[in-house]
Amino acid sequence: MQYRRLGRSGLQVSELSLGSWVTYHNQVDTKGATEMLAAAFDAGVNFFDNAEVYAQGESEVVMGQAFKALKWNRLDYIVSSKFFWGLTRESNTTVNRKDTLNRKYLMQAVDGSLKRLGLDFIDLIYCHRPDPHTPIEETVRAMSDIITQGKALYWGTSEWSAADIRAAWEIAERHHLHKPVMEQPQYNLFHRKRVEQEYARLYEDTGLGLTTWSPLASGLLTGKYRDGVPAGSRASLESMGWMREQLQDRAKNAAVGQLAGIADELGCSLAQLAIAWINRNPRVSTVILGASQASQLHDNLGALAVTPKLTPEIVARIDAITQPLAS
Amino acid sequence: MQYRRLGRSGLQVSELSLGSWVTYHNQVDTKGATEMLAAAFDAGVNFFDNAEVYAQGESEVVMGQAFKALKWNRLDYIVSSKFFWGLTRESNTTVNRKDTLNRKYLMQAVDGSLKRLGLDFIDLIYCHRPDPHTPIEETVRAMSDIITQGKALYWGTSEWSAADIRAAWEIAERHHLHKPVMEQPQYNLFHRKRVEQEYARLYEDTGLGLTTWSPLASGLLTGKYRDGVPAGSRASLESMGWMREQLQDRAKNAAVGQLAGIADELGCSLAQLAIAWINRNPRVSTVILGASQASQLHDNLGALAVTPKLTPEIVARIDAITQPLAS
Amino acid sequence: MQYRRLGRSGLQVSELSLGSWVTYHNQVDTKGATEMLAAAFDAGVNFFDNAEVYAQGESEVVMGQAFKALKWNRLDYIVSSKFFWGLTRESNTTVNRKDTLNRKYLMQAVDGSLKRLGLDFIDLIYCHRPDPHTPIEETVRAMSDIITQGKALYWGTSEWSAADIRAAWEIAERHHLHKPVMEQPQYNLFHRKRVEQEYARLYEDTGLGLTTWSPLASGLLTGKYRDGVPAGSRASLESMGWMREQLQDRAKNAAVGQLAGIADELGCSLAQLAIAWINRNPRVSTVILGASQASQLHDNLGALAVTPKLTPEIVARIDAITQPLAS
Amino acid sequence: MQYRRLGRSGLQVSELSLGSWVTYHNQVDTKGATEMLAAAFDAGVNFFDNAEVYAQGESEVVMGQAFKALKWNRLDYIVSSKFFWGLTRESNTTVNRKDTLNRKYLMQAVDGSLKRLGLDFIDLIYCHRPDPHTPIEETVRAMSDIITQGKALYWGTSEWSAADIRAAWEIAERHHLHKPVMEQPQYNLFHRKRVEQEYARLYEDTGLGLTTWSPLASGLLTGKYRDGVPAGSRASLESMGWMREQLQDRAKNAAVGQLAGIADELGCSLAQLAIAWINRNPRVSTVILGASQASQLHDNLGALAVTPKLTPEIVARIDAITQPLAS
Repeated sequence: MQYRRLGRSGLQVSELSLGSWVTYHNQVDTKGATEMLAAAFDAGVNFFDNAEVYAQGESEVVMGQAFKALKWNRLDYIVSSKFFWGLTRESNTTVNRKDTLNRKYLMQAVDGSLKRLGLDFIDLIYCHRPDPHTPIEETVRAMSDIITQGKALYWGTSEWSAADIRAAWEIAERHHLHKPVMEQPQYNLFHRKRVEQEYARLYEDTGLGLTTWSPLASGLLTGKYRDGVPAGSRASLESMGWMREQLQDRAKNAAVGQLAGIADELGCSLAQLAIAWINRNPRVSTVILGASQASQLHDNLGALAVTPKLTPEIVARIDAITQPLAS
Repeated sequence: MQYRRLGRSGLQVSELSLGSWVTYHNQVDTKGATEMLAAAFDAGVNFFDNAEVYAQGESEVVMGQAFKALKWNRLDYIVSSKFFWGLTRESNTTVNRKDTLNRKYLMQAVDGSLKRLGLDFIDLIYCHRPDPHTPIEETVRAMSDIITQGKALYWGTSEWSAADIRAAWEIAERHHLHKPVMEQPQYNLFHRKRVEQEYARLYEDTGLGLTTWSPLASGLLTGKYRDGVPAGSRASLESMGWMREQLQDRAKNAAVGQLAGIADELGCSLAQLAIAWINRNPRVSTVILGASQASQLHDNLGALAVTPKLTPEIVARIDAITQPLAS
Repeated sequence: MQYRRLGRSGLQVSELSLGSWVTYHNQVDTKGATEMLAAAFDAGVNFFDNAEVYAQGESEVVMGQAFKALKWNRLDYIVSSKFFWGLTRESNTTVNRKDTLNRKYLMQAVDGSLKRLGLDFIDLIYCHRPDPHTPIEETVRAMSDIITQGKALYWGTSEWSAADIRAAWEIAERHHLHKPVMEQPQYNLFHRKRVEQEYARLYEDTGLGLTTWSPLASGLLTGKYRDGVPAGSRASLESMGWMREQLQDRAKNAAVGQLAGIADELGCSLAQLAIAWINRNPRVSTVILGASQASQLHDNLGALAVTPKLTPEIVARIDAITQPLAS
Repeated sequence: MQYRRLGRSGLQVSELSLGSWVTYHNQVDTKGATEMLAAAFDAGVNFFDNAEVYAQGESEVVMGQAFKALKWNRLDYIVSSKFFWGLTRESNTTVNRKDTLNRKYLMQAVDGSLKRLGLDFIDLIYCHRPDPHTPIEETVRAMSDIITQGKALYWGTSEWSAADIRAAWEIAERHHLHKPVMEQPQYNLFHRKRVEQEYARLYEDTGLGLTTWSPLASGLLTGKYRDGVPAGSRASLESMGWMREQLQDRAKNAAVGQLAGIADELGCSLAQLAIAWINRNPRVSTVILGASQASQLHDNLGALAVTPKLTPEIVARIDAITQPLAS
């Protein structure tokens, strides 16, 4: 495993990292999470991504229990949380607790996450989505104040527009506050424009780092939807109906079929190919893997061996197949 | 109940809110306050207005006991306090404790409020009146420091001139401090100029939000003083003599009579008409109701159904009746 | 007793205040100090001046014990301390503890004073003298940081040059720090130039307030040295030899004789005349009295009745007598 | 012993100071360290240099135990620590714990040092080396935040380039943060260019102070390597092989031979001559001695008597011998 700076910051994150594993209907319990964390850590993963909203806070509880059991030295791992959607189960109202980045929500949300995680501080905190109803200055000041209070070390955004990220950075610079350091965008072979075009100037101008999510496009890039939705897959679940259509997209599944040929040539799995392609982008600080099983995690980590095989010629073939279909 | 942003801030306050219920000679005890808070909360009210001076601190004590009994999630309600007049009963002197916004008073006053309310932080803190004897910079810095210390989330003013509010905002901007977010002015059919004219430029320039008080002009707009001061009314109390004259103002009570006709047309009470008219102004973030009885609160909340009925033609008729008499 | 703003700040200090009473060889014990504090407080005095160096910390210990016994409300009194000379008895070295305003000394000194005084914060902290060996910026930042930490409310200087006070004010303004608010200079009929000439522009430009010391010029203005040094007086003490010469200054004692005539005309004591003359200067926020006996305190407080009698004509006569001799 | 300001700061450090004594394979235990500290302190030394990396944290543990035993007043001594290399024994990974000045490492490292030293604050904290992989702004902000949190009093650098020191100073000035105060460079007769040339403008422009290390060039300047590596010396140790070559440099040992003649003339040891020569440079705030035995410490402190003997003529002779060989 190699490590990269989180954008222009001095923090080193593992190229591949682990996240979100308890998000899907609690497929993973504390014991399973602890084993998976241990396996990832042993493989060199040092960044474990989380969010308040994952499993409505339960993801943080489980991760916190795992940390307690694993007794790692606190310097050796990086934890994140993200704030925006709030915990809606614990209240009948959504006012000031859902879809917001106002000061009241942020100051209270971080305290809740610290408690659930059982930690004194969170390494990375994110604004999980943009909130058009809160001035960016209010959000910047709250995130910066959380860092000043010692409750977090770095802050960033997730799925913000380049314009909003730049606004946040400039406001922080002007008022001498802690500036945003990283963004967590979706990034994979079929979802590329934001990372490759919209953010282009930010890397140099503000030193933006990326922690990317959905490397396999919700599983589409594993090839398992090429012949329809298999029983037991995520897309077969009633609650995931909204996702089913795009996972069965004919053109994309056909493209995946072509990618499979390249994966065969390289002697790797489709997932490994897809992850290696992201890892190859030097703007990406870390690729967050979403594995829910140890076997899946091990397969995904195998992508590290594939990255060096991605010659310009191979990349050109991959791009020719996927770029026309990518958003 | 709908929610509005507190000015340009990201905080959402209910259109109607509840305040001051223990201000009038302790008409309401903790049990009564708890019931009223619960009723308001169930109706969607999320902002509960208070001040150090209300019943000389007892209003905060009662509200704190009610909060303890109600066990609401702290994210779901917004509490305020205000500082200026001080607690004069607890001392023989008024120096540095009355009519001041100096640093010594403010830093100690907020600690007292937190203790009486039994809270870790107050959502909104106000400078209850302007203090011409303290530099605005001293006050701005103290209010901002209280927020930095985590004892409050947002700060604002009450009954300040537009010039002073702007001065405070500019000083905070220049020194990178927390800026004032809201103002609490008197606003009703007979008291309009400050909100509609004096503050006009502040809404756009500084994003000022309003939490308005005295929607019924001390009861004048309920119509109960049309035939003199009824026994048992607030104005009948010895200590309220100063208020009696204006409540018996002939021209205003005649205007109230005309408004009663409009209320009848709309099938609502006079109080509901008066509240709905304030609620209709998009510059008003929330109308603070001053109910001391549950029945009164329920009647007032009925104003929400009246607001949509205030067509431009109806508003023109209301304005024709009241504007000539309004300060 | 009347109250004045401490310069342009919003803090109200009593025109006359009490200080230093345990500085002279522990003439006053805790019981005596408590009685004197109580008497002063009852007369309206709200400012009690102290310093780390007075009786090598014992003055703070005694005052702290008196506060504990008196149980005043913390809003109703103002306490000061001052830092520069350090506590030299507790160590064999003077390095970083004597004649310094460096960060190490200041940060530790304030903690010691808080402990001795038994308080959570000190209202006013002073740099007791200028320190040419520490950059003003280092001192400004330390004093401001102490306020930000909540350990003090306002800071100022004592016996600093106008140039240094202005430098401190400008550095604080530029770096958005807490600015100095007051200066504690010697000021009496025979020591006037700094207050009246050197600081002249600072009052308007920075809002400087004054808490003045030595109103009686070490007793010279009481007239008791007109016929030599009386047995038992301060100047008769061996350790006060350095002071004896100036207290026996012939020209000054002759001038005091002339002032005695004016005091007789006004029906007041010489001390009252001298104090009233200082009190008359609107630039003076408070005159710190140095009484060691209750009777002396009561006499000095009588100056308040004399101030209104100081007509322009009387003042002209006083000035004609003293100004030629004043430094 | 005399004291000098640490650069332009107000902190007074002893001309000679003591450091690192547990760095060499734990030659000194707590009892020995306590005795040495006591001897140095009695001789007037008030600065005790340390670093996280010395003996992998054990140096701080030992010094903390010695402080506890010695019960000095906290004002009377100055302790340092330095951060960069991290504690590598306590973990299998070096990521974010070695060769870094990122925020995560620094914030956690200072807490570890405080705990090992058993102190509430460290007087001086250093960036032990430059980290080209962390933006200077991130490091400046973290160091400044540590001071704001009260965990340290002053911060500086060790072995940074003039350009980086200036960048750090300017960033701190622009963002109103605590500026770096001192640098800890190697400085001795054979290693001079950085202190004498590279930093030349910094002394005036930023007030940089110096705490210099390696006064004897790892022992070369004691003359003990003139006839090869003696058994039992540091250079004879297997792990110090990298140092052996330069300690046996022929030209330098020949120069040391010539210096011995000057030392004889002055009636002092070679070590004393070398230390006195550094002490003579007014840009040097303090010379850190690396003694591991009491006798050695006493010999080194004898340099203070030699400094006055370094006439311009003597210095010219010393420079003629060493400057051509100096880096």
